Amino acid sequence: MENCIFCKIIAGEIPSQRFYEDDEIIVIKDIEPKAKLHYLCIPKQHFALLSEMNGEQAEIVKRLFEKVGKIAPQLGLGEGYRVIINQGENGGQTVRHLHVHLLGGEKLGDF
Amino acid sequence: MENCIFCKIIAGEIPSQRFYEDDEIIVIKDIEPKAKLHYLCIPKQHFALLSEMNGEQAEIVKRLFEKVGKIAPQLGLGEGYRVIINQGENGGQTVRHLHVHLLGGEKLGDF
Repeated sequence: MENCIFCKIIAGEIPSQRFYEDDEIIVIKDIEPKAKLHYLCIPKQHFALLSEMNGEQAEIVKRLFEKVGKIAPQLGLGEGYRVIINQGENGGQTVRHLHVHLLGGEKLGDF
Repeated sequence: MENCIFCKIIAGEIPSQRFYEDDEIIVIKDIEPKAKLHYLCIPKQHFALLSEMNGEQAEIVKRLFEKVGKIAPQLGLGEGYRVIINQGENGGQTVRHLHVHLLGGEKLGDF
């Protein structure tokens, strides 16, 4: 999608360090970390909302969560982490491309 | 699982108001709300961690997110919401039965 910052990062038009990448997702760091470790796990396919997922996108989300569980240790999140997904206006979704925050690297307080 | 509070709620041993229920998940309210609306979406099957999901459980999680997207409006979350999953010690997971927090009903601030 034109003008989507995450699509530009995925396409390599904006440089980024990728802590994990496969054919469906990338993991980068959030530029405004809210915890000692704060990653963004982003599907390469552009879609914004859980409510608008088609069947293929739901499969991508399923595999994203399976992968997050598996790669957590190599991301330094082996002792636990918090998953956050902001959806829409009230949820504070700043980029209209689904992205999953992964926070950890320390004992997180209440949210 | 014995001594799992969410299994007791699912089994009806502890009463709860269910805002949504089907054969795989229930939606109840968090007893310590962190937002105007604060639900817990809980798979009926007992498992704690994304890193330990088997294939069937990953399918349940996939359908959970599809359902969350669809039922959000009837939960009062049509204007957006925040999904939070705490995993393990550092993530602040207080109950070792996977549960998905859904927060909304107001414009949420940063997390």
